[in-house]
Amino acid sequence: MTTLIYGSSQDCEIAFYRAFEAADIAAMMAVWAEDDDIVCVHPGGPRLAGIEAVRESWRQIFAGGPGLRIQLSALMVTSTLQTAIHTLHENLSVPGDNRPRVPMIATNVYLRTRSGWRLQLHHASPAPGQPPPSPATSPGREPATSLH
Amino acid sequence: MTTLIYGSSQDCEIAFYRAFEAADIAAMMAVWAEDDDIVCVHPGGPRLAGIEAVRESWRQIFAGGPGLRIQLSALMVTSTLQTAIHTLHENLSVPGDNRPRVPMIATNVYLRTRSGWRLQLHHASPAPGQPPPSPATSPGREPATSLH
Repeated sequence: MTTLIYGSSQDCEIAFYRAFEAADIAAMMAVWAEDDDIVCVHPGGPRLAGIEAVRESWRQIFAGGPGLRIQLSALMVTSTLQTAIHTLHENLSVPGDNRPRVPMIATNVYLRTRSGWRLQLHHASPAPGQPPPSPATSPGREPATSLH
Repeated sequence: MTTLIYGSSQDCEIAFYRAFEAADIAAMMAVWAEDDDIVCVHPGGPRLAGIEAVRESWRQIFAGGPGLRIQLSALMVTSTLQTAIHTLHENLSVPGDNRPRVPMIATNVYLRTRSGWRLQLHHASPAPGQPPPSPATSPGREPATSLH
């Protein structure tokens, strides 16, 4: 298990999305608090609680290996001494696949623990509306689907 | 504007769902932090930020008046001195309408402010899967839709 200490919620968030892109389950679980109250809601998925359920969900998502690109935008942060509430848009893509996709709206809540900042909660759901228009080079593609 | 002081995140949550059921916009907005960083994501909706956008969304939801019943279940809470992270299932129904509905998964984050505990973030999205079977007394109803 990776033993990095994240000095801020921002550092922890960068590590979360790097692990997500890299499909690295050890790096992903090192980001989360070591707490059976951690909560993860993937888009369209159930509420998962506890380390085992959260790890298993990422193991399944990562089963196909890396290849996903995630661009983050519209970050908003509200912090207290021990907690940071982040919301943002996740713009997911696969290099070479130009199908338009709607962004995911993510709520990420981080706690300052004795092991540095850790992710306590991730709740993601699709933003509304049609995905942006297909690039002119890829007309007639089928509608985007959620990767996350 | 109501000026109640909520002494715990639980009290604030009860007030939130009472205001939701009552379609009471003043009571609803009294629950929220007075902060332009408040965030609200209704199921299938965009990320709304700031008091004006959040108020307008509830005004639209409440336009039809009260009539919704909300049963809460599966509450999980993680707290620090200044923050409480709640996740739960919202089971929405309209008395007399027995159509089955999937629960909503809600993340509610409360902050302890100078005016007591207030809601800083609400992010709700539908739980997966088919709604539970229709009661035997109402076969052939159309599929459930989200009220919230």
